[in-house]
Order: sequence, then structure tokens, then C-alpha cells
Amino acid sequence: MIRVTVWNEFYHEKTEESVRAVYPEGIHTVIAEFLGRQEDITVRTATLDQPECGLPPEVLAQTDVLIWWGHARHWEVPEEVARRVQEAVLCGMGFIALHSAHHSKPFRYLMGTTCNLSWREDGDMERVWVVAPDHPIAQGIDRYFDLPHEETYAEAFDIPEPDKLVFIGWYEGGEVFRSGCCWRRGRGKIFYFQPGHETFPIYRDSRVQRVITNAVRWAEPETRVPEVPCPNVQKPVLKFDEQ
Amino acid sequence: MIRVTVWNEFYHEKTEESVRAVYPEGIHTVIAEFLGRQEDITVRTATLDQPECGLPPEVLAQTDVLIWWGHARHWEVPEEVARRVQEAVLCGMGFIALHSAHHSKPFRYLMGTTCNLSWREDGDMERVWVVAPDHPIAQGIDRYFDLPHEETYAEAFDIPEPDKLVFIGWYEGGEVFRSGCCWRRGRGKIFYFQPGHETFPIYRDSRVQRVITNAVRWAEPETRVPEVPCPNVQKPVLKFDEQ
Amino acid sequence: MIRVTVWNEFYHEKTEESVRAVYPEGIHTVIAEFLGRQEDITVRTATLDQPECGLPPEVLAQTDVLIWWGHARHWEVPEEVARRVQEAVLCGMGFIALHSAHHSKPFRYLMGTTCNLSWREDGDMERVWVVAPDHPIAQGIDRYFDLPHEETYAEAFDIPEPDKLVFIGWYEGGEVFRSGCCWRRGRGKIFYFQPGHETFPIYRDSRVQRVITNAVRWAEPETRVPEVPCPNVQKPVLKFDEQ
Amino acid sequence: MIRVTVWNEFYHEKTEESVRAVYPEGIHTVIAEFLGRQEDITVRTATLDQPECGLPPEVLAQTDVLIWWGHARHWEVPEEVARRVQEAVLCGMGFIALHSAHHSKPFRYLMGTTCNLSWREDGDMERVWVVAPDHPIAQGIDRYFDLPHEETYAEAFDIPEPDKLVFIGWYEGGEVFRSGCCWRRGRGKIFYFQPGHETFPIYRDSRVQRVITNAVRWAEPETRVPEVPCPNVQKPVLKFDEQ
Repeated sequence: MIRVTVWNEFYHEKTEESVRAVYPEGIHTVIAEFLGRQEDITVRTATLDQPECGLPPEVLAQTDVLIWWGHARHWEVPEEVARRVQEAVLCGMGFIALHSAHHSKPFRYLMGTTCNLSWREDGDMERVWVVAPDHPIAQGIDRYFDLPHEETYAEAFDIPEPDKLVFIGWYEGGEVFRSGCCWRRGRGKIFYFQPGHETFPIYRDSRVQRVITNAVRWAEPETRVPEVPCPNVQKPVLKFDEQ
Repeated sequence: MIRVTVWNEFYHEKTEESVRAVYPEGIHTVIAEFLGRQEDITVRTATLDQPECGLPPEVLAQTDVLIWWGHARHWEVPEEVARRVQEAVLCGMGFIALHSAHHSKPFRYLMGTTCNLSWREDGDMERVWVVAPDHPIAQGIDRYFDLPHEETYAEAFDIPEPDKLVFIGWYEGGEVFRSGCCWRRGRGKIFYFQPGHETFPIYRDSRVQRVITNAVRWAEPETRVPEVPCPNVQKPVLKFDEQ
Repeated sequence: MIRVTVWNEFYHEKTEESVRAVYPEGIHTVIAEFLGRQEDITVRTATLDQPECGLPPEVLAQTDVLIWWGHARHWEVPEEVARRVQEAVLCGMGFIALHSAHHSKPFRYLMGTTCNLSWREDGDMERVWVVAPDHPIAQGIDRYFDLPHEETYAEAFDIPEPDKLVFIGWYEGGEVFRSGCCWRRGRGKIFYFQPGHETFPIYRDSRVQRVITNAVRWAEPETRVPEVPCPNVQKPVLKFDEQ
Repeated sequence: MIRVTVWNEFYHEKTEESVRAVYPEGIHTVIAEFLGRQEDITVRTATLDQPECGLPPEVLAQTDVLIWWGHARHWEVPEEVARRVQEAVLCGMGFIALHSAHHSKPFRYLMGTTCNLSWREDGDMERVWVVAPDHPIAQGIDRYFDLPHEETYAEAFDIPEPDKLVFIGWYEGGEVFRSGCCWRRGRGKIFYFQPGHETFPIYRDSRVQRVITNAVRWAEPETRVPEVPCPNVQKPVLKFDEQ
């Protein structure tokens, strides 16, 4: 059983009618629902307005994969919580950053770069291309899939070269973007997935749901450690004589 | 002085009027001309119909960077010549594969994959995006540049994950392609650059010329060896006692 | 069920007493035995002296992961068989190259480099270090494990930068070597593992067996295609109007 | 002219006799001296006890490559200074982290990982192996070089997979370590180099000096930007009709 926690800023849905119309109960609820229908996945949710952002140490300790959606309130996530998430990833927890979470604290701290990009809100069509058809996250996806309307993100995206680039987005207005990127950091696996602007029902799309479900399975930890060790070791014994 | 050899299949230009109209003296001549105007570059050319494809060992030995354009006659390049080029790259020679050279023998042998892709000839506009603005090959190029008409290449492109992805192409018809990719193999540096369909004056474009010129300087060898060594070595002396 | 084929040159075991003493029934038999004890793995073997090296197309079609051991007779593997193996990997088959298989045709063709290295036969102790404790292939292995005697392989190893470096070997005489390396090529996953000189009982070591078993599970295909496509596609329909 | 700033914690040299004996005027002075002898390099130094650690914005703005040595007082570097260095790197400044600077704030922030490792102070001999003989940083270095005494660093080193691994260290007591690693982050290039324990005259060694000098030239910025952009862009004009 893969234990997923879906974290959502849960702000736009309460303050903007155009977003509430799409996600009346919050983006996290929609994501939790489609993941919860999988037999091998169990889901909980957490939001910014909960104590400790809903992410006290005991929750992270019971989370195999953390999904993160945030946009307008990145700076309200306390440093302590952001660092706690980063450390959990380095100790093995999977981390999936969605859309505007490119600027979230945990993602930026894990990448080490600004994660800046160019952006444009014209509701362009996006065509998401598979560039790594062998990758587990791309299974079940055809050569590409279309999203009728999405916010446009454009290169240059200031990220470390991905360990594996899985998707590239094409936009009607002339842009491209590395829309699906994988990294390993410490013991943890990280996936960034660009689709998901709050005013369009992106997370209700079956292909998007398939990608996120694949990513959860891919990001499940191989191993989990309480902390990354940094020991002062003894000189190992070399058994030359006994050989 | 960087010694460049521009190799061209030089077939379409002699057999198709639409190509001759664009490159009456051959693609290689146009590339050699703009490179030859640089003070630090000296150029020669070689073509398929010359003895040993114009690439006998002594020519490769005096070539710092080899540029390759081929399309319809890949299979006419003898195995011996293709392997000779591969070995020269592994010993340090730079290699720039242009456009349909994705299927050339030297490029495929260096990559180890099929280098297959999807393609379409509708003369779409291409917008070439810089994804690595820090890279030497992208210097002097803005966020993107447009080619009014180009053959469309589409993902998935069956190549090893590039060491560095520099450009992504966007096409009017809805495709994307990793249009500028860097690898190191052995002592040699390799750059693949997608623009260059034979019926459009791509190599007369100043931005394309800038990219290829940058790539020549980037691909100049750090070091050149007569062969990659594989020695049966003696046990090294460990001077524990003397310390 | 993962279908593994263990290929062995099976030459030293028949011609050298020192090797026969360690592997009287061939290296392939020992590897097949420990893999065959796993509930999720089924094994067959193939050797150089069989028709088509025991690897006709129908065998490869039924092989999920191919393990390769060769040393003195690399050149006797026909080009056709070597290319068939390469293509099967690019279509999804996993490939594990052991020890002196660094110079085998399939491995070299997949890498594109010489795969040269320095070597020394003094029976040094080797200590194999885990550098990627998060990687599936390293699971169940401590910080390092010792092999009392092994042939020494030394850097520089002429390979493409691994997608992931899993093990580094330390040798008593002062050398280091990238002993466990992962790549993806086409749809297939490739693992090179250095231990396994024919005069020492390396493949009877429980840690080595664990690594190879892990690697088999890691290299199982995500997807398998009959061939890597290279289609002349139609212009995709962009449904701007319908949105 | 490459403008280098050598930063040193400059603490051990003032508090421990064993260190003062080796570096009476500080590690930074020795590094600045050998770099300053190069015709294309100009050097300044900065230390922890200076205002703003000697790294106010105007110094970073005039620094092409920053070299960093720290060990016991990492936590005394103010957050503001550490972030300022990180941002300068992302905007193009080169960064060379030496030895125990693996735990420095700027290096950790750029990597995103703990940068933990195992360590041992027994004055072992280290043999530093070249694994990337094609790399600019390895030019002028033979297959390996020996340091008679060095602190031992051991894997697993918790870093992102290097873009390029240049050196691996071998230690007398049985350890290995990725001793020379390259990354690109933002517009900046980063090199980590392990040799340099404060009680041994490592930075007086000609091979170590050659590596650091090479690294300075490699890390010189291709381009420098005042900040990494994140613009809200206008819809680009697509000139389909004019073509």
C-alpha cells in the first residue's frame, strides 16, 4: 500500500469564483479521489491553513509520496515545514510538484535553483508530448495528449538538468516547456509535472490522472532512512592476510 | 586555429531542382563559407563521391571538428569510413551532426540507438527555443528564433538522454523536438542540431550560422589521443612506507 | 514472471583447468541456478557454440532480461546476432553485461564507445562500494562488500557517463573502477557489473548474487515494442476552434 | 582576465598549531598565490571575520569564480550572505567548493541535498584517479596522482548525480570517494574537489594546484545576468501568413 498525502494551498478555491466553479471542494480533493480509487494507494490530504500546514513530523513519517500544489501563498509555508519536507525527501519520501509548485519552497530547496520560467495566461491549448516512452510515468499515454486550455509556461525553465525528461509541452501561442521532469535527491525521487492551472479542470482529465498515478508508483521509496548518515567511521579492516 | 571539415552527401543538390535552387554549389559550400569567415577557424570540405568519402585517415587526423550532412545515401558510406569517423571522435575529434544526419552511420554508431523520430514535410514554421541559456552553443541567441519553413521532426527521438539539452523546436503543426543536444563520447564532443532541410535556405540564416559556429568552438578537442588505451598494467607502487 | 536468458561464451571452462575447477558446468549454470530459485524469475541459458549463439529471434522475443558473459571469443559472435541483441534492447529487453563483457559486441554497440579500461591480474582483494544507496540494484547491500580475489579493472573506463552510478570498486593495489553502471537506451535498461573473473568463485558470492538478482528486476521492461518507430506522420489536427 | 575571489573560514590556522605550521598565513593566501601567478587570473581573498564575510554584493559582482574553503564555522556564515552567493552562482558566477566545504551553506543550498559523507582522520595516502581524461579540469594530470596524507572521505556522498564525474579518490584504508564533481546550476558552473585537509600541505601540491587552476578556467561564466528572469510574457506573434 502506497501512502500518499496530497497537499494543497487551498486558497484560490476559497477566494476566486472562477476557481471554485472548477474545484468547489479544492484541488486536493479531486486528486485524492482519483488516487484513492487505486487498490494499491491510500490517500490523505493536508492544507496550508491546518496547524503546521497539516504536515507535522508524524504525518511525513507515514507518507510515502507527497503531492504538492501551491501558488499564491508559497511564502506562508514556514521555513521549518519546508525544511522538514526537504529532509523527508532526502530520507526517501517521494515528492510530486504540480504546476505552480515549481516555486514552492520544498521544490526550490531540493533543486537549488530559482525554478523561474516565463508564463502567460491566455488559455492556450497545450499538447503534452512523450519524449521518454520507456519511462514508467509515461505508460498508458500515447505519443501525446491535448489539454484544450492551460496556462502557458515557457522556457528557459531554471532547473538542474533532469535525470530524465519525460514530457515536453507545446503551446498554441508558440512556446515549449519541459513539462515532466524526474530527479533523484538523497534517497527520494522527485517528479515535476506542469499541467494544472486552477481555472481549468486539468486534474479531472483522465490522461493527467494516469500520469499522476504512474508518478506515485514510480516515486514510492526503495528505502527509507531516519536520517542521511554522516559518520566518523573507524578504519575498516582489510583482510589481505586471510585471503 | 580550429580545423573544420564539412562533409556533405552532396546528392540532392545534383539531382533535385528544388534543392539546387537553394544550394547550387552544395550545402557544404555554404557552411564552409560562413565558418571560413571566422578568424580562428579554417575549413575544408569532403563529399560522398570522393575516394574514401573524402575522409582518409590523414584528413581526419588533421580535423578538429567534423560537420556531417547526409540524408538519402547514408548506406553508401562504407563501414570502414563510418568506423574511422567514430574512432576519431572517441579519440577527441568534435562531431556535429546536422538535420537528417541523425540517421548517418557515424552518429548512430556513437549513440548506440536507432536515432529514429517522426517526420513530416509540410514546410511548417519552426520556433527554436533556448533551454540552456548558460551553454556556450546558445551564446548570442535570444530566447528563441524562428525559421519560416522547415521539415518537421517530432518526438519521441530515440537518442540517449543528452548530457545537455540546449534547444527544443516548436512546430506550427503541433510538434516538439529536442533540436539541440550535446554528448561526450570518449574524448570527443558531439552536437546534434536539427535545422537544415535541403529545400529551405536554413544554413543561410544568421542565427543558424551562429549556433553552428558556437558549436565548432565548443567541440574543439581538449585533448587528442592516437587511440583509446586498454593496457595490461603493472601493479602500481604504493609508497606507504616512505610517507 | 521475468524471463531471463543467461548467455555465456563457455570457452574458458572447457579449456582451462583453473576455470573448470571453479565452474565445472559453466558460469551460466551457476547464474541460472541462483536466479532460478527466485519465485518471480524463470531462466534459460544460451552459449556461443549453439546455432546462432543460442539466440535466434524467437529466443530474444521471449527474453525479458539477457545476461551476458564473454571474454576470449567476442569476435566469434556474428554481426547479425550482435545487432539482433542490440535491437532487442532498444525495443525494451533488459541487458546485464558482466565483467569482461565490457568488450562484448552488444555492449559496445549500445554504448558507442570503446569500453576500454586498464586491467591487471594479480588476484587483488576488491571492496565494492555503494554510491547510490537509494537505487533498486543496491537494496540489501551494506555500505560495501569485499571480494577476497578479483581481477583488477582500473579507470579511465571509456563509457558514456552512466545515467546512474551505483557501485565503485576499490582494489588492494591502488585502483578504482566504476563497477556498477546504469543506462537507458531506446526502451531498454542496461546494467554493467564488473565482478566476475573466471578463475574466482565470484558468482557463488551471496552479495554478488543479490546484486544480479536486483538488476534483473530493475531491468525488466516497462514496455516492449516490435520495432522503434520512425513514421512519416500526417499533420496533427489542432482543435483550436472546438475549444 | 578571470577575477577570482578565494574565500576562507580562516579559523583553524589561528587556533591550531598543527594547522598554522602548514598554512601560517591561511589557506586562502596559498591558493591566491598560485592562482595569481597565472597571466589570465587576478585574485582577491575574503574571510569569515570580515564585514559581511568579505562578500558584499559589489565583491560578488566583480567575481567571476568564487573558491570556498570552510569547515568548523559553516553556521557563522549569515543566511543573507549564503543566499547571496547562491544567487550569484545561479546568475553565472563560477563556484569551486574545496574539501570540507561540502557542508558549507552555499554548496548545500545549490545541491539541495545533505552533502553528507563518511569520514576518518588517519592521514591515509590518497590516490586521485582521473575518470574523465577528456575533461578540461583533468588536463595536465596523468592517470592518477598521489597525496601522501589526506583525511579520508568515503561514499555514500549525498549529492545529486554529477553532470560529470572527473576524479575518484582511493584511500589506503579501503575507501573510495567521488573526489571531483561538476554541475551546472542556473547560469553558473560548480566544481567540488575533495583534497585539502587543513593539517596537510595539499594546496602546495603542484597537481592539486593544476586542478584548481583548470577548474577556475572551466568555471568562468559564459554569460552573466543580473537576475534569473521570470517574466509574465505577451503572446508571441506567429508570422504564419507572412511566410
